[in-house]
Amino acid sequence: MSAVFAECLPQARFAVLSGPSFALEVCQGQPTLVVAAATNEANARDAQQIFATPRFRVYTHDDVVGVELAGALKNVIAIAAGISDGLGMGHNPRAALITRGLAEITRLGLALGANPLTFAGLAGMGDLILTATGDLSRNRALGVAVAQGQTLEQYRTTHRTVAEGANTSLAGAALGAKTQVELPIIEKVGEVLFDGKPARQGMTELMARELKSEQWR
Amino acid sequence: MSAVFAECLPQARFAVLSGPSFALEVCQGQPTLVVAAATNEANARDAQQIFATPRFRVYTHDDVVGVELAGALKNVIAIAAGISDGLGMGHNPRAALITRGLAEITRLGLALGANPLTFAGLAGMGDLILTATGDLSRNRALGVAVAQGQTLEQYRTTHRTVAEGANTSLAGAALGAKTQVELPIIEKVGEVLFDGKPARQGMTELMARELKSEQWR
Repeated sequence: MSAVFAECLPQARFAVLSGPSFALEVCQGQPTLVVAAATNEANARDAQQIFATPRFRVYTHDDVVGVELAGALKNVIAIAAGISDGLGMGHNPRAALITRGLAEITRLGLALGANPLTFAGLAGMGDLILTATGDLSRNRALGVAVAQGQTLEQYRTTHRTVAEGANTSLAGAALGAKTQVELPIIEKVGEVLFDGKPARQGMTELMARELKSEQWR
Repeated sequence: MSAVFAECLPQARFAVLSGPSFALEVCQGQPTLVVAAATNEANARDAQQIFATPRFRVYTHDDVVGVELAGALKNVIAIAAGISDGLGMGHNPRAALITRGLAEITRLGLALGANPLTFAGLAGMGDLILTATGDLSRNRALGVAVAQGQTLEQYRTTHRTVAEGANTSLAGAALGAKTQVELPIIEKVGEVLFDGKPARQGMTELMARELKSEQWR
């Protein structure tokens, strides 16, 4: 979105609000911590002033690209986690998948100039944990449904909510190709959702080939 | 444990095995990924050879201190997550707590010579996600029970399993004092378990005071 602003509304003042924040829980008044990122600190502070309440705490942040990437791509990893859950796989493989997923996002972020520490914070790891393990996650729910045999098309006709990670898997894979960063989990989600690859086959390929080493890059 | 080996069995060859691995799921044959860390690569490879199966995959690692710290201290953060769950708090605050908890562990690891990337891997983030969100976690279960009014003593008399994070909260706080690293979540868990601080009060204090900024340190 920041690239769109730069192109279409170059004079716009904006900040990016992101973090582990299921909307329902925000409405319930559950303590929620998010970040507001802007390249100009005054804009981040203004966003903080506008949104912050005692139970919705907004911290200023300066890594717009990192926060945007984390917020978008965590949805794709959540679909992968949902596929794992929907196939009846356990917590052990899901935890490995989420961990490797954040490593993928971090690699891409580094290539695009983000600060790697952003991905260890609320907008990165925090939001990923929420989205990949929480029952309220629309993207995880899509993964579960696909693992149980639905196609993306079928799912979309029966659900009014938006599981934005589906399209993001394609956008993420394109960014990976452009920057020559390997994104095996994100690419595999795209293959399952759009190329008709069976969910179980996709997960087996990932577990066998891509989760091959405990390496940061 | 590596310090104990160095002191008591200086000639011992050992490696440290850790990662997201609920024992029940390992028995069920769920794909499980762990690391074997040793200062001497040959020892790590030997441990890998001994334990690895196609469904229990062992990756060699060289950061013994980081893997040990992550494996021990994640239990304390899991107790905190259990307290949050037991108090009826939602996924939003729990995700924030887990994120800040890993930041604490990473800070302490840095002070003790660990590699910060270890905490972003299977033995760090991976195991923490598993332990802090999974129903099979003994430490999380202790936190839930304490939040619902049990004392640590009562819990221990009615459960034969070991929630080792209780004692680790004291050991972790002592290490933090020794290295002058602030560990607010770990310290608060110790106060709730051993000093009679009500769970809700401890969590309120954490949310109000310690989760105050999106900062790495």
